[in-house]
Amino acid sequence: MTTRTEATFFPPIPEAQRWLRGVEFPADRPLLNLAQAAPADPPPSALRRAMAEFIEVPSSHLYGPVLGHPDLRAALAEDWARHYGGTVEAAQVGITAGCNQAFAATLSALTTEGDEVIVPTPWYFNHKMWLDMSGVVAVPLPTDDTLLPDPEAARALITPRTRAISIVTPNNPAGVEYPAETLSALFDLCREAGIRLIVDETYRDFATRTGAPHDLLSRPDWSDTLIQLYSFSKAYRLTGHRVGAVIGDADLLHQIEKFQDTVAICAPSLGQMAALHGLQTLAQWKAEQRDEILARRAALAEAFGPLEAKGWRLKGLGAYFAYVEHPFAMGAAELAPLLVREAGVLILPATMFTPPEDPSGDRHFRIAFANAGADSLRALCTRLAALDLPPLQPL
Amino acid sequence: MTTRTEATFFPPIPEAQRWLRGVEFPADRPLLNLAQAAPADPPPSALRRAMAEFIEVPSSHLYGPVLGHPDLRAALAEDWARHYGGTVEAAQVGITAGCNQAFAATLSALTTEGDEVIVPTPWYFNHKMWLDMSGVVAVPLPTDDTLLPDPEAARALITPRTRAISIVTPNNPAGVEYPAETLSALFDLCREAGIRLIVDETYRDFATRTGAPHDLLSRPDWSDTLIQLYSFSKAYRLTGHRVGAVIGDADLLHQIEKFQDTVAICAPSLGQMAALHGLQTLAQWKAEQRDEILARRAALAEAFGPLEAKGWRLKGLGAYFAYVEHPFAMGAAELAPLLVREAGVLILPATMFTPPEDPSGDRHFRIAFANAGADSLRALCTRLAALDLPPLQPL
Repeated sequence: MTTRTEATFFPPIPEAQRWLRGVEFPADRPLLNLAQAAPADPPPSALRRAMAEFIEVPSSHLYGPVLGHPDLRAALAEDWARHYGGTVEAAQVGITAGCNQAFAATLSALTTEGDEVIVPTPWYFNHKMWLDMSGVVAVPLPTDDTLLPDPEAARALITPRTRAISIVTPNNPAGVEYPAETLSALFDLCREAGIRLIVDETYRDFATRTGAPHDLLSRPDWSDTLIQLYSFSKAYRLTGHRVGAVIGDADLLHQIEKFQDTVAICAPSLGQMAALHGLQTLAQWKAEQRDEILARRAALAEAFGPLEAKGWRLKGLGAYFAYVEHPFAMGAAELAPLLVREAGVLILPATMFTPPEDPSGDRHFRIAFANAGADSLRALCTRLAALDLPPLQPL
Repeated sequence: MTTRTEATFFPPIPEAQRWLRGVEFPADRPLLNLAQAAPADPPPSALRRAMAEFIEVPSSHLYGPVLGHPDLRAALAEDWARHYGGTVEAAQVGITAGCNQAFAATLSALTTEGDEVIVPTPWYFNHKMWLDMSGVVAVPLPTDDTLLPDPEAARALITPRTRAISIVTPNNPAGVEYPAETLSALFDLCREAGIRLIVDETYRDFATRTGAPHDLLSRPDWSDTLIQLYSFSKAYRLTGHRVGAVIGDADLLHQIEKFQDTVAICAPSLGQMAALHGLQTLAQWKAEQRDEILARRAALAEAFGPLEAKGWRLKGLGAYFAYVEHPFAMGAAELAPLLVREAGVLILPATMFTPPEDPSGDRHFRIAFANAGADSLRALCTRLAALDLPPLQPL
């Protein structure tokens, strides 16, 4: 019998990395790897110095509490309350070994075999994979050219087995920031239906907006409906240390504690100390990182112009990602490895973010632009513009 | 509807820690906390120095490959092949964020809703919790006073839904080392039945035996049946860094990669570098740690003598744990918090390691002795001997 894990797809990033095997990239045209949303550089030197000192603190090597170090939970609660203008207690914050784990633990607490979760498409592949692996039906909520979910369309998908609507904003892979009114309508819908709204805000620190992206935390009793997920990986370049968080109802966190104890024991202690140090000392540095990523975003938008003349369309652009439509007859899944060989470009086809039956997957790519400098983004656009392939339809 | 996670029990260690709340321990009789198998000290200074240097290596802060850094996979494969006298390829080793995760990932790849896994009792609670949380039936295989599983009794429990027999040796919680012939018979049984034998060897480095505890890795095509789990936490005192491993079939690891990508992305990079450094440089130090733990084991065996006169029985003693029968009328679950208050002793009742319907749970305790010095172990026995409680039956 096929297990749920056997039945889901293989993780896209390692699959995409296999396309690189055996391909040589000349020195004057190096590989442009825009596949993964991961900082390519270590944390700033001040944080590295602090971490080297933490090595001499014995607790950095020992187990900590299952739901995270109390100081970090309290500090994130305070940061969260300030950022969103609401009330968050330390008991409403749980620390996980990364934001993927926050999602898995949350869904494990909320769902069981045969339950349903509504997910806008294109979706984040690891969310889909976890739902598959835990026997939960990921119900696709297709988005139109705006890449935004329509709350009324979501309402039509709710059944007695629906447990949650799960969204990511700023969105991975679509790069769009959900407007406050969309979030408000989804929250009201979930509350009315007695289900949860899960909001993955991994990329919140790199939004174009400053200030609160929504007012959900100021709603009375928000925690009966809202669950937010966060990652310290991008904000402080701590990807390799695996620290994320879930913000939600304290009783729900007590259930999540079971998953964390069983699958992780606790998030890495040193990483938690680094995340706390980042929260306490790196606000200015983080703001500069955001400025840099916004500059890259602007550079990509500008460099994309000539591609539009060739039939490409830039549909979403924000936080770490651009979501683009290509003009070629060939599907994106087939094109992607060809782009590696022909253009020295690694970007992910949207087939990795869409249900197999959704034809839009083969029309789009996700570009993880935030790791690349403006020169690389210009080179990307130049190389894509130079592709000579049969178009889907005559221009 | 109750989810699978809601239906399983709360993690025992945090539950037990709650018994400490509001209890004061006088300076002349401090708390003896023998609840958890976790080193209380950091890694040795040579490893700490190396880790502080790794902080300046950028890759220590970045994502690594999902199944672990190639150097660590290769080094553990080599160590494993040497220790067990068999053949292990790097592709047969996957690195996880701790050994609990190795178990969860392995079971996720092997099983689906309604499948069965045979587990000797007393069992390791996190194994039972994961099976519950993933919809798999943990079929208890009761052990007698030897605390060893009987392969013929295991055979009688196999059904068409059985996917594996899962054991821990040296055993948590029972402290016994499974004889090579027991492992051999279980391997043969699993191969004959077309199911897997999962052997969690977290405590292998602290066995009384030197050399290979079994010859399973020398069997032809061992990987079609055998899966071994390991932890770097105890060997190099890296608990807080979360590094474990699964050793098994390369195709199975490709399935496990899905779970790892989705739940962890990768094990922490710095922890993996530390584990590799430990493997390469700390053999002598690890041997000394083992000597120390064996000395503690001997101290507990000796100090236990007077308790036997009071009706206690020492049934299992090895690696990190002692498994003891108490003589009191009251059940262990009720006794355990009373021991905190009356004796300043925190040990776990065996109800945390047995199915609810198994009466042996209330007759036994697990003592995690390896973290305690000989003086503490003597104090433990003195305090337990001083308990004045009604016996189960007249001596």
